[in-house]
Amino acid sequence: MSEKIFSALWAEIEAIGRASSGGYLRYALDEPELVLRDWFRNQADRRDMPVTDDGNGNLFAWWGAAWGRGAVLTGSHFDSVPHGGGYDGPLGIVSAFLAIDQMRAAGHTPSVPLAVVAFVEEEGGRFGLPCLGSRLLSGAIDPAKAAALTDQDGVTFGEALGATPAGPLPGLQSRIGALVELHIEQGRQLEVPVGVASAIWPHGRWRFDFTGHGDHAGTTKMSDRRDPMLTFAYTVLAANKEARLSGAHATMARVVVEPNATNAIPSLVRGWLDARAADTATMDSLVEAVTKRATERAGRDGTEVAVTSESLSSEVTFDTALANRLSGLLGDAPILPTSAGHDAGVLSALVPTAMLFVRNPTGISHSPAEFAEPADCAAGVDALARVLSELT
Amino acid sequence: MSEKIFSALWAEIEAIGRASSGGYLRYALDEPELVLRDWFRNQADRRDMPVTDDGNGNLFAWWGAAWGRGAVLTGSHFDSVPHGGGYDGPLGIVSAFLAIDQMRAAGHTPSVPLAVVAFVEEEGGRFGLPCLGSRLLSGAIDPAKAAALTDQDGVTFGEALGATPAGPLPGLQSRIGALVELHIEQGRQLEVPVGVASAIWPHGRWRFDFTGHGDHAGTTKMSDRRDPMLTFAYTVLAANKEARLSGAHATMARVVVEPNATNAIPSLVRGWLDARAADTATMDSLVEAVTKRATERAGRDGTEVAVTSESLSSEVTFDTALANRLSGLLGDAPILPTSAGHDAGVLSALVPTAMLFVRNPTGISHSPAEFAEPADCAAGVDALARVLSELT
Repeated sequence: MSEKIFSALWAEIEAIGRASSGGYLRYALDEPELVLRDWFRNQADRRDMPVTDDGNGNLFAWWGAAWGRGAVLTGSHFDSVPHGGGYDGPLGIVSAFLAIDQMRAAGHTPSVPLAVVAFVEEEGGRFGLPCLGSRLLSGAIDPAKAAALTDQDGVTFGEALGATPAGPLPGLQSRIGALVELHIEQGRQLEVPVGVASAIWPHGRWRFDFTGHGDHAGTTKMSDRRDPMLTFAYTVLAANKEARLSGAHATMARVVVEPNATNAIPSLVRGWLDARAADTATMDSLVEAVTKRATERAGRDGTEVAVTSESLSSEVTFDTALANRLSGLLGDAPILPTSAGHDAGVLSALVPTAMLFVRNPTGISHSPAEFAEPADCAAGVDALARVLSELT
Repeated sequence: MSEKIFSALWAEIEAIGRASSGGYLRYALDEPELVLRDWFRNQADRRDMPVTDDGNGNLFAWWGAAWGRGAVLTGSHFDSVPHGGGYDGPLGIVSAFLAIDQMRAAGHTPSVPLAVVAFVEEEGGRFGLPCLGSRLLSGAIDPAKAAALTDQDGVTFGEALGATPAGPLPGLQSRIGALVELHIEQGRQLEVPVGVASAIWPHGRWRFDFTGHGDHAGTTKMSDRRDPMLTFAYTVLAANKEARLSGAHATMARVVVEPNATNAIPSLVRGWLDARAADTATMDSLVEAVTKRATERAGRDGTEVAVTSESLSSEVTFDTALANRLSGLLGDAPILPTSAGHDAGVLSALVPTAMLFVRNPTGISHSPAEFAEPADCAAGVDALARVLSELT
């Protein structure tokens, strides 16, 4: 397809939820994401595709009978991390609608229903648990537990949704024939416009609560302090070092300090560890090593540390036969793993799932600087249309 | 005086602005502090003391002609650090009213005007600059600059005050004969109920802006990262180590992270250094050493660091003759320095100034656990009444 057609549809959503940083503040079920959901319904209407909601916050626009046997789903998510890029998520939804236009223009009639899906809360940017929508749809999380997740203003997911989530779709495995998620690549690993995913690294989030003794920053003797900021700082450096040693990825990028005042030694520093590795054993031993070093340092600082696992995604291997088939269809497109989590990874436990990646020239993602060339995005639409025509 | 009388007046303000942590959220010109200012006017009314405002947000309750020549001021501040203790500040104001009661009961007639003062924004907890009220009164800060200081919601000090601050009091040095501020001691250095201040350590706040490259925490190779959290963490530990080596105090207790998301490498980490030492040369070389180590580490992390001095308080030596005289009056009360900043320190550059300290059994301050025994507080009132009777 032409870059021009891609760019025209892309321009419709480009300004929605964009902050002065150039990045996006699109949080699940919050104002800009609700505008995007309206845009989704609108796009579906324009194409005579009825929209259904699964009661979990996920939207589906149907070409063919809703939830008819063996349906093929394609899409992604609208929500962003705070000040994230505009491609991570929305590219998969915009490309899905354009692929359908292309399939129709080519006279394709699907043999099974085809749906464009918009998953809710993929980033966990509002309620803290990534892939919340696909976890609910697939039964990987208890609906009551999901309903009780809170955002930073104390609003629960249930309140934002307006109901307790419906939970897993009955007969999911017979209703969904396949899911194909198109996504911007995020690791500077793709040197051609389009690739196919092989696997997702296992990954998780751990909360480290460092507690000490709140006191006056000016008057408290250095030797009398029990300052949890020191233990946090040591742990940040230890996590980085351990990840480098083990060939894994570890990041501590989010921190909450109480009281967070210049002249008051904190009573609490809470930091989150994001850890990923090519296999579960490596990831587990990384987290264990970081915990051990944090605990040792806490002993020296007179502080305490408590570690809580907040989310855990096992290693995902996408359907190998399907990946090979799609790669072949796309002229032997490269097959590559990713260390980013995706809704497709969650659903891969139950149904045949594949991902297409669109080249990211800088590899930058979760940042205002995230970018894909319009020509590569157009090539992504072409590839998706070819794949969906084959699968339906 | 009896502990009972002290405790009764203390109880009137004890609940105002107290959070569930047990600490206080009393920010300058914000709800709980406005309630305390009303309480101040009420206490003044009860004692037939007219209240004036200096146009900078500082309140004065007068026994005798307002701003009559050689007036003696006594008091402190109402505002707290976030979740700070209730004694730091308010003890000096409550004690001032009770000392006046005691002087009147003893039939004292002051020969010069005596005023109870409540300084505004001593902690810098809302607008970031400590001792803002006393700096304005004494001309140590430009009123337009003070008016433009913003709180975290973007409200300026000028807006909160309802006007551009009036700035320095004309003829301050002839109008103020002396200032005596009573304050809870904050360093576990006082083993009797009441002491007299000798000096305040020089101290200041420096903002460290660590900038890097926002990116995906999962997919970015460790070797490709430019993560400012690492540079921040290293600097926290370096500041602690340098302070220990030089016998100074250094704290990094406040941090702001952008975007502060678990799965996004930050583009910016902003941390504040609070540094204090017995002399300016030691403090300066401490800050220099921390800056040098932060800059070196930034080079290794591929990040950048910019250091901005946000406030600086020179070494204060209180009027030595006055301190000796007060110590003598109080039965050779110990004379001791402090590393905490105070409005009395700011005014000491222009007028004779003294401070009385009330024992703090744990030394804890800027924390919900801050505490003084009622008996020691009552002894503080007695001492203040003796001192004010002598000075007026």
